[in-house]
Amino acid sequence: MSLKLYFAPGACSFVPHVLLEMSGAAFEPSMVKLHKGEQNSEEYKTINPRGQVPVLVNNGQVITQIVAIALHLDQIFPQAGFLPTEPIARAQAISTLAWMNNTVHPTFTHIFMPQKFSDLPEVQAALKPYNIQVFRQQLGELQALVQAAAAKGQAWLTGEQFGVLDAYALTFTRWGTIAGITPEEHPDLWAFVQKVAAVPAVARVIERERLQLNMGQPA
Amino acid sequence: MSLKLYFAPGACSFVPHVLLEMSGAAFEPSMVKLHKGEQNSEEYKTINPRGQVPVLVNNGQVITQIVAIALHLDQIFPQAGFLPTEPIARAQAISTLAWMNNTVHPTFTHIFMPQKFSDLPEVQAALKPYNIQVFRQQLGELQALVQAAAAKGQAWLTGEQFGVLDAYALTFTRWGTIAGITPEEHPDLWAFVQKVAAVPAVARVIERERLQLNMGQPA
Repeated sequence: MSLKLYFAPGACSFVPHVLLEMSGAAFEPSMVKLHKGEQNSEEYKTINPRGQVPVLVNNGQVITQIVAIALHLDQIFPQAGFLPTEPIARAQAISTLAWMNNTVHPTFTHIFMPQKFSDLPEVQAALKPYNIQVFRQQLGELQALVQAAAAKGQAWLTGEQFGVLDAYALTFTRWGTIAGITPEEHPDLWAFVQKVAAVPAVARVIERERLQLNMGQPA
Repeated sequence: MSLKLYFAPGACSFVPHVLLEMSGAAFEPSMVKLHKGEQNSEEYKTINPRGQVPVLVNNGQVITQIVAIALHLDQIFPQAGFLPTEPIARAQAISTLAWMNNTVHPTFTHIFMPQKFSDLPEVQAALKPYNIQVFRQQLGELQALVQAAAAKGQAWLTGEQFGVLDAYALTFTRWGTIAGITPEEHPDLWAFVQKVAAVPAVARVIERERLQLNMGQPA
């Protein structure tokens, strides 16, 4: 098996990057420099015509989209326990993953790339503050999930094994600090994300991507 | 096994509604009248606090989100072939499902419910025409997928068996006509959707939801 991951530092590609690192398998991380527009190069668009990260290439076969990559990694590394195996618990974990991916993630896109939703500068400017408020509420929902897991005595969001949702939670919380949402607003979420960041495989990915968790503080 | 589906006519809950009908299993379809605000009733919010359809209740266990429900139905009805089983083909089908769910679907939300993204009437008004253009392009991408499947000699988007993507394609194409995107703009997509609609299980769901495919024509 040959595995290659195209990722961009700090982007949502962090999620499969962490899963691959946790799998213990050999893989080739390939950095895509978004600030240089490499995702729009002809070379990259032959891999992913939509010009997005992440892309997983498994034995030459291209797989895009976090949800698809995460489920594929769960299938080829079943011992890693990235998702629960009991059918209902699994469906509920995938439900939260889908919510993260189709709701929380696009909310941040309205803050970070409002030009995807309008070509009018005044509309783009108006989208930001409103969606920062929405993102703040969504981080509150995420914190409630963290609290519910803790109340059940679970170490991680979906049980005793570190999984897909835990990695995605770190990404969103970090993005929140870019939008001016401080760690103090969601202390239990922030404490959880610190615990995620301390997992050795996660720490290695943070080092490789050179990430700072709290973007609201000076570097 | 007891299965109950909460759906709203014409909403994205059409997708699991079709899958359940195709499964041949007994299930209870329960209509949620969005125009009466039933999704925001206290009773419904005890089932889904986010006030959305679809919800699948399997033996009393609540599963929300199309992606999660579709994967769960694929797991409990493996003989139905809602998704490919070969790992790479499966990952690529789930990738397209994720794209439909996190990109195409939210684009339509900007047209149909722009109030989710801004509380300013002028911003809401500006979001509509821009995102109609984006949705038109996305239906073009969807038509390209239909054409690519046909070029490979496949009966349906993911192979020889009718699946999740085929049902979702009908929903988006129908929504397009609500946004003023005519069938003539994507003739191959429209022909494909007519074929989807003629599948007996799909036809039964269209009848139960009392759907008209082309909303751009007088009823």
